[in-house]
Amino acid sequence: MRDVCVVGVGMSKWGEVWRKSIRQLFVDAATNAIKNSGVDHLDSLYVGCMSGGLFVGQEHLGAMMADYLGMPGLPAMRVESACASGGMALRSAFMEIAAGVSDIVMAGGVEKMTDCAGDDATFALATAADQEYEVFHGATFPGLYAMIAHAHMARYGTTRDMLSAVSVKNHHNGSMNPVAQYPFEVTMEGVANSVMVADPLHILDCSPITDGAAAVIVTTEEIATKLGKPYIKVTGTGCGTDFIALAQREDMTAIKASKLAAEQALKMAGKTIKDVQFAEMHDCFTIAELVISESIGIFEPGKAGPAALAGETALDGKFPINSSGGLKSKGHPVGATGIAQIVEIYKQLTGQAENGRQIPGSPKVGMAQNMGGSGASSVVHILEVA
Amino acid sequence: MRDVCVVGVGMSKWGEVWRKSIRQLFVDAATNAIKNSGVDHLDSLYVGCMSGGLFVGQEHLGAMMADYLGMPGLPAMRVESACASGGMALRSAFMEIAAGVSDIVMAGGVEKMTDCAGDDATFALATAADQEYEVFHGATFPGLYAMIAHAHMARYGTTRDMLSAVSVKNHHNGSMNPVAQYPFEVTMEGVANSVMVADPLHILDCSPITDGAAAVIVTTEEIATKLGKPYIKVTGTGCGTDFIALAQREDMTAIKASKLAAEQALKMAGKTIKDVQFAEMHDCFTIAELVISESIGIFEPGKAGPAALAGETALDGKFPINSSGGLKSKGHPVGATGIAQIVEIYKQLTGQAENGRQIPGSPKVGMAQNMGGSGASSVVHILEVA
Repeated sequence: MRDVCVVGVGMSKWGEVWRKSIRQLFVDAATNAIKNSGVDHLDSLYVGCMSGGLFVGQEHLGAMMADYLGMPGLPAMRVESACASGGMALRSAFMEIAAGVSDIVMAGGVEKMTDCAGDDATFALATAADQEYEVFHGATFPGLYAMIAHAHMARYGTTRDMLSAVSVKNHHNGSMNPVAQYPFEVTMEGVANSVMVADPLHILDCSPITDGAAAVIVTTEEIATKLGKPYIKVTGTGCGTDFIALAQREDMTAIKASKLAAEQALKMAGKTIKDVQFAEMHDCFTIAELVISESIGIFEPGKAGPAALAGETALDGKFPINSSGGLKSKGHPVGATGIAQIVEIYKQLTGQAENGRQIPGSPKVGMAQNMGGSGASSVVHILEVA
Repeated sequence: MRDVCVVGVGMSKWGEVWRKSIRQLFVDAATNAIKNSGVDHLDSLYVGCMSGGLFVGQEHLGAMMADYLGMPGLPAMRVESACASGGMALRSAFMEIAAGVSDIVMAGGVEKMTDCAGDDATFALATAADQEYEVFHGATFPGLYAMIAHAHMARYGTTRDMLSAVSVKNHHNGSMNPVAQYPFEVTMEGVANSVMVADPLHILDCSPITDGAAAVIVTTEEIATKLGKPYIKVTGTGCGTDFIALAQREDMTAIKASKLAAEQALKMAGKTIKDVQFAEMHDCFTIAELVISESIGIFEPGKAGPAALAGETALDGKFPINSSGGLKSKGHPVGATGIAQIVEIYKQLTGQAENGRQIPGSPKVGMAQNMGGSGASSVVHILEVA
């Protein structure tokens, strides 16, 4: 298997972007990544997108984005695993480089969500849950994650303040991220007093609905070296799934799919979780960040909440989580999120994180954890300095 | 790069299947493929599906199908390239085996289309075209392919009878396929007098709306040999794209994406088109089979129609096309079609085609050509006897 590197990254500005279509958002991010990497062509393209069909009435995004990038002819396909679609795009690019089929592959992600307002966006997102056994009966994701939160609180004594601490930290980090949708600070009181969405989750526990795209250039170490630009290595990829309906899971207070994905990725990288120094995590709701960091072994079960409250996951903490601002502050255009995580880890490992967001101590090993639905699928990557 | 083989195949019965959900259709095909191959586990799953979201309100089909196969935990993702989604699933499985990341991968495809009746199905399919530049202005696929047909007729003198000959041949072949949706013969007069859909295309020039699934087991030659079941080799994979909107293409009478994909696949296999002995082709409309077989070099431009009329593409012709019955007779559950093509080629190369459908002379090299939209994406595989 050939070594796989990331040599350039790009983002569109995230937010409620009325003046750009899904194709323009993607092209913005993709051209930024191409310029950033210095590559003069692509061999192949993967586009992560959850539901172009339901959000904007457009499927077939692989071919469309190749076309609108000015590269008709380019091998291209879309990959989807709900909100883990971006991470799956990197995984697919990894396979193609590792197999030796292609040398320069773009892994991108995009979602245009705000065109599809109100109930329609909630329905579109809910198609990541089990339509027959969950959605039909009224379940949506805030409700499902609220159940996870209640179960975690009941079992481990997780508190309102612990959830709020995640939001406060991520908004602090996001306030330094130039592409973030909500780049402002929030307070513990502000989170606790924000409008209730699904008890115990308030609006400031929830990631927003976002328009945005992200892209990275994946290549061999030989080409990365020749380009003369900073690059990092993708040393492990892992993917796991679980029962799609939350009610069927072995344990509602853990994300088994992420546990499996992290184990595979670490094994491939020849590392243990103790070797990982920071992570981007799928904080679609504040409770998710706590549950995930326990599931993949960063904290013991029930200890992530106290750690968040104690600042252990802050930029200058023992294990920084979501230096980018996470889904909470940066935004969550669902198909783009997994790639944006890679963008942030690339910036951190190459010392390019903007506006004082750089993690101290020059970390060498980062993890990207991306997941779909209420945790029915997950993809994890280990990234290291070259 | 490791050798890649197909060691077992499975289909669901195709048609208007009211009593089975999308998950049950997929599980039917997948369990048939598992039984057929003799594997005792899977390492990974790819599900080709064009629009679970628009057809049945269900995305996240990778995780869902792993779950409903009784394998929660299994790495899984969905891939999409409109009607080429199935072929892309095989391509993805190929990469994963070739890279050495996994040893036994299922590539499957599924679409449940008839739940979404009338205008809704037409809208769902049209999301494979350019929503802003084609669909918004009223274009749908019968109309786009009708334009291709008119252009081909004007340039090359292609006739009504030549189009009808494709339908007659494919229905004849499909009449011997036990899973076909429409396993009956049609006549030249029957096609020409069937109801008009979009001039010059009549209803018997068009592939139907279908519920169905297909799955194949992809593995290494070492494992295929150990299983002791018939297997074939995937010696080439290729993928191409083109402008998504038909009006922007260089030439409406050719499918450049398929030309590019075929060239790549043949190059990887170390073959030329003259080494290929038969093919499954994406006859979503009769005109498509003619245009494709010219685009990939089986016939000179303008010669595919006369060849079809002369019986050269029949089962006992010089170059049999769509021995399965093709999309026309077998049906076209869009995400499953590309995998069903592999199922047919597997059967032909291992001498297992049912009911007298076996191509004479024990062919050794077959090609599967699958495409999306009006030809904006295409994926081609070369398959050979082991």
